[in-house]
Amino acid sequence: MPVKDQQDEGEKRMRVHGVFPPMLTPFTPRGEVDEGAFVSNIEKWNRTSLAGFVVLGSNSEAAYLTEAEKLRLIELTSERAASDKMVVAGTGVESTQETVHLTNEAARRGAQAALVLTPSYYTDKMDDRALIAHFTAVADAAVIPILLYNVPKFTHVTISVRAIETLARHANIVGMKDSSGDVPRLTAILNAVPDRFNLIVGTAAAWFPAIALGMRAGILALANCAPNESARVLSLFEEGKIADARELHNRLFALNAAITATFGVAGVKHAAEVCGYAGGAVRSPLQPLREEAKQIIERLCREAGVGE
Amino acid sequence: MPVKDQQDEGEKRMRVHGVFPPMLTPFTPRGEVDEGAFVSNIEKWNRTSLAGFVVLGSNSEAAYLTEAEKLRLIELTSERAASDKMVVAGTGVESTQETVHLTNEAARRGAQAALVLTPSYYTDKMDDRALIAHFTAVADAAVIPILLYNVPKFTHVTISVRAIETLARHANIVGMKDSSGDVPRLTAILNAVPDRFNLIVGTAAAWFPAIALGMRAGILALANCAPNESARVLSLFEEGKIADARELHNRLFALNAAITATFGVAGVKHAAEVCGYAGGAVRSPLQPLREEAKQIIERLCREAGVGE
Amino acid sequence: MPVKDQQDEGEKRMRVHGVFPPMLTPFTPRGEVDEGAFVSNIEKWNRTSLAGFVVLGSNSEAAYLTEAEKLRLIELTSERAASDKMVVAGTGVESTQETVHLTNEAARRGAQAALVLTPSYYTDKMDDRALIAHFTAVADAAVIPILLYNVPKFTHVTISVRAIETLARHANIVGMKDSSGDVPRLTAILNAVPDRFNLIVGTAAAWFPAIALGMRAGILALANCAPNESARVLSLFEEGKIADARELHNRLFALNAAITATFGVAGVKHAAEVCGYAGGAVRSPLQPLREEAKQIIERLCREAGVGE
Amino acid sequence: MPVKDQQDEGEKRMRVHGVFPPMLTPFTPRGEVDEGAFVSNIEKWNRTSLAGFVVLGSNSEAAYLTEAEKLRLIELTSERAASDKMVVAGTGVESTQETVHLTNEAARRGAQAALVLTPSYYTDKMDDRALIAHFTAVADAAVIPILLYNVPKFTHVTISVRAIETLARHANIVGMKDSSGDVPRLTAILNAVPDRFNLIVGTAAAWFPAIALGMRAGILALANCAPNESARVLSLFEEGKIADARELHNRLFALNAAITATFGVAGVKHAAEVCGYAGGAVRSPLQPLREEAKQIIERLCREAGVGE
Repeated sequence: MPVKDQQDEGEKRMRVHGVFPPMLTPFTPRGEVDEGAFVSNIEKWNRTSLAGFVVLGSNSEAAYLTEAEKLRLIELTSERAASDKMVVAGTGVESTQETVHLTNEAARRGAQAALVLTPSYYTDKMDDRALIAHFTAVADAAVIPILLYNVPKFTHVTISVRAIETLARHANIVGMKDSSGDVPRLTAILNAVPDRFNLIVGTAAAWFPAIALGMRAGILALANCAPNESARVLSLFEEGKIADARELHNRLFALNAAITATFGVAGVKHAAEVCGYAGGAVRSPLQPLREEAKQIIERLCREAGVGE
Repeated sequence: MPVKDQQDEGEKRMRVHGVFPPMLTPFTPRGEVDEGAFVSNIEKWNRTSLAGFVVLGSNSEAAYLTEAEKLRLIELTSERAASDKMVVAGTGVESTQETVHLTNEAARRGAQAALVLTPSYYTDKMDDRALIAHFTAVADAAVIPILLYNVPKFTHVTISVRAIETLARHANIVGMKDSSGDVPRLTAILNAVPDRFNLIVGTAAAWFPAIALGMRAGILALANCAPNESARVLSLFEEGKIADARELHNRLFALNAAITATFGVAGVKHAAEVCGYAGGAVRSPLQPLREEAKQIIERLCREAGVGE
Repeated sequence: MPVKDQQDEGEKRMRVHGVFPPMLTPFTPRGEVDEGAFVSNIEKWNRTSLAGFVVLGSNSEAAYLTEAEKLRLIELTSERAASDKMVVAGTGVESTQETVHLTNEAARRGAQAALVLTPSYYTDKMDDRALIAHFTAVADAAVIPILLYNVPKFTHVTISVRAIETLARHANIVGMKDSSGDVPRLTAILNAVPDRFNLIVGTAAAWFPAIALGMRAGILALANCAPNESARVLSLFEEGKIADARELHNRLFALNAAITATFGVAGVKHAAEVCGYAGGAVRSPLQPLREEAKQIIERLCREAGVGE
Repeated sequence: MPVKDQQDEGEKRMRVHGVFPPMLTPFTPRGEVDEGAFVSNIEKWNRTSLAGFVVLGSNSEAAYLTEAEKLRLIELTSERAASDKMVVAGTGVESTQETVHLTNEAARRGAQAALVLTPSYYTDKMDDRALIAHFTAVADAAVIPILLYNVPKFTHVTISVRAIETLARHANIVGMKDSSGDVPRLTAILNAVPDRFNLIVGTAAAWFPAIALGMRAGILALANCAPNESARVLSLFEEGKIADARELHNRLFALNAAITATFGVAGVKHAAEVCGYAGGAVRSPLQPLREEAKQIIERLCREAGVGE
């Protein structure tokens, strides 16, 4: 459960603890946002051990949503989330000024923190100087705390450990989601940032190793379909049941690999449906799953012991 | 000069011939679009041997512009371009439906063709199936002809030769800008598409080799500062002065490398200023050039014999 | 300590447990193998908690040694290693027949197992079919057990999990060193192979996470200079002192990053000298460390609490 | 035809002009070098327009040959090559001292120049400093002229243009084979080196563009099966028949792509057999072609108009 606590020097810092789904955005067959389905997922997730919600992450097809659609989804999430669930909104776009704008609009609609993707279009120009300038400007102007978001699989940009070390000193940058899957890098980051910096793992493939390294939060695609199991890897470890935590991690591993590395968002959506949530269609240019892929996911859900 | 001509089967096809700048977007120091500067560039370029304009290409910082800014720039370009200059607008965004929307809005504001970037966020899902579906849907719905745009340096996606071969059969897909700089690939594409398909080279580093291979159009960052010189590489070749064309290409090579590979958009903008055009500021997260970089560009302009 | 134990179906399988250094090869300033220095290192390492030795690994500059030099180093290692230390020899070269030849010559000189690098020259042809054929042929012909060796940083080849799953069924393939640093991949491999398959981590950057995942052996460049500390990360974990194990891992992390990722073999050699072992010169084309690099390594040794 | 000519400052420099095959090494089904088949190829190639021979290139499976086999093949080539054909031997291995040794042994067996591959095992350490030191040491000690060999597809190392510029000043470094296929890079190199430096293209996919840029030599896998056609692309261009040269290049393109990018050495060997030369088996871990691949190559030979 996320809490705000008092920090050294009287500074208020957010503590992020537990599992969050990068929430799926269900579309109707005609490609419109299916708000009813979106809300019904929230209501089910409210009854799980999830620590909160990330609206507009990579698995939300945020890249395919208009600004109006984005703001509406933030609003819906804030309204419907149970009071003990934290609401984080993805607000990073390519330009600094638009990212500031979107972050503060998200705050107005109830987001408690913003997850800010690295800009990436001019890939080789997104060096330490540019990234530090960008995130500093956003954090300066934002009325809610900022979490950096590093996902090189999609952006082909990596925030260097040195840049993270610098940015972690900013009073309004409270953590980072790292989806690189690069576990040695997680150690390097942990060694470079203060304890109050919330390093959050962004892929279930590294969930147990990240916990072993001392991390306590995950924003995991897998949590869309297996929220309680994802959260239980952490709680088992915290109870000292390390072998059980590892075994559960191992059991979820193949399903997670299928819905992230192999099949992507359409795979996450099908797994969510297998598990009783609303997946819905993907938006073009993403393509619907082939029948064979659906059967693989159904088998992997059974083997992982998730779903109905 | 671009002309429309009659094709086999009575099909009307656009022919693209000559050099186009991917137009710079000058910003004021406060980060606003400087429309006056933008228009003054068009007026100067109108008096050069350019074949037309590409508004909202990669060098236009299109990724950092709002939709309203984009449409205004298309409008300005259509209004101010000399009547013999073709106007192409970059309209590709991540989602298929938004790309269709933007393409037809561009057409309403006078764009004669649309240059459509590959979607790229879910990089490894942008396979032949997804790209063929995306470009087919856009070309079906667009009221102006479509040019595919392949720029792996920024998108980390490459349209396969096989997908191009398929898409080149679509009546409303009239060509492609390839900025890979991969000259063997250009041969492979030329061998796979009909003559009427306009293969356009997207980097001056491959301009002379592309001409030697039979290509007749370039959308070249270099043309922002050296429009006549860029066009002259082609006209010399067409006059049979092959050694002169090659020599001019070689002379422009180092300057082009600096403003594209090394310094990027900020470099193109400074070179444009050296050559009497308005460059203006870049928009954040792009960072301004350091003084040293400016001096290198000034020296390379002198050595290439461009500018004042 | 390595032991051979009885396996199901009466099959004898080697069990690899503990830490091994990929032994440095000290060269004289004139570039000759310094056998005296090599032997003096073995004698010191004999008195540490190392489980054994890997002669002719990547950090041995094996790529720069002649066959005669290689065989002599194997011989020296077998002769001088304490009786409770296992001796593994790197014997993989590009061709299958030469790898078989070198493996059996290594066995004649006392090697107890062979570590067989993936061939890599024709990178994109080293697919599952080629690698399975290669390792199967080597394992069939070898008179000692085979450990696969995956080190994409140097070879740019990765043995797929599917190929590992197949090869792990071979009676004479007893394990694998994976130096990818890709911890999610380690989970995938562990899920695919039988318990008797010795998965060995090949980089200290992933040592603690690998232990947390259940692995029990490491072939670590760091063990050349910090053998007892490297071994202690494992023994602490096995004693249930998980936080202590993690803390020691974190403490060694920056030194290891410097001597592997940043400075390479010359860095490992300097760190070894700082810690009282013989490093010696590197062989060309490797270049000697600059003075500044030496000082960084000395500082990192102090900060990690290793050395004299 | 290669000739030595007088240069400025009285320096003797080799001029390389025309097409050379990186000669296939035919193996018997048992994996031994088939010297009879090797010699019969030379005798046929002697009657073509080839400018000479490259023995022990990448397509010779040099990585799979012992030193004794290498020296024997150099000897055979020197003995059997027609007097007007130049003999170049590939002598680059990982260590500087072994490269010097092999180069001078090659010279003793009649090689007129050595083609020296970049060392590559410690990929990220093969920076300008290491490569300049390596090639300088080799060129200093070699009794025959040196050609640098850049083939990143296999080595994952690229000699920078800056390093080439430095090395091109060495009296005994007379040129370079570049197999990157990166045509803009060829322009950059040509702009950086003196005229007497022989820049040789290493892939037929870039042959016509390289000629258009002013290059006059190619070491082309394709020349193993289509020596006269490969040479004719150059002679047509030199006769001013540019469109014919381009058309022939385009006609050979798909066959070349198949035997290099798609099928590799086994593909070149099959195409050679289709064209009346001896291909023989590949050595393991390279795998024999599947039947389907053979049929594709046979069709492409017919379509390119080469073979019998």
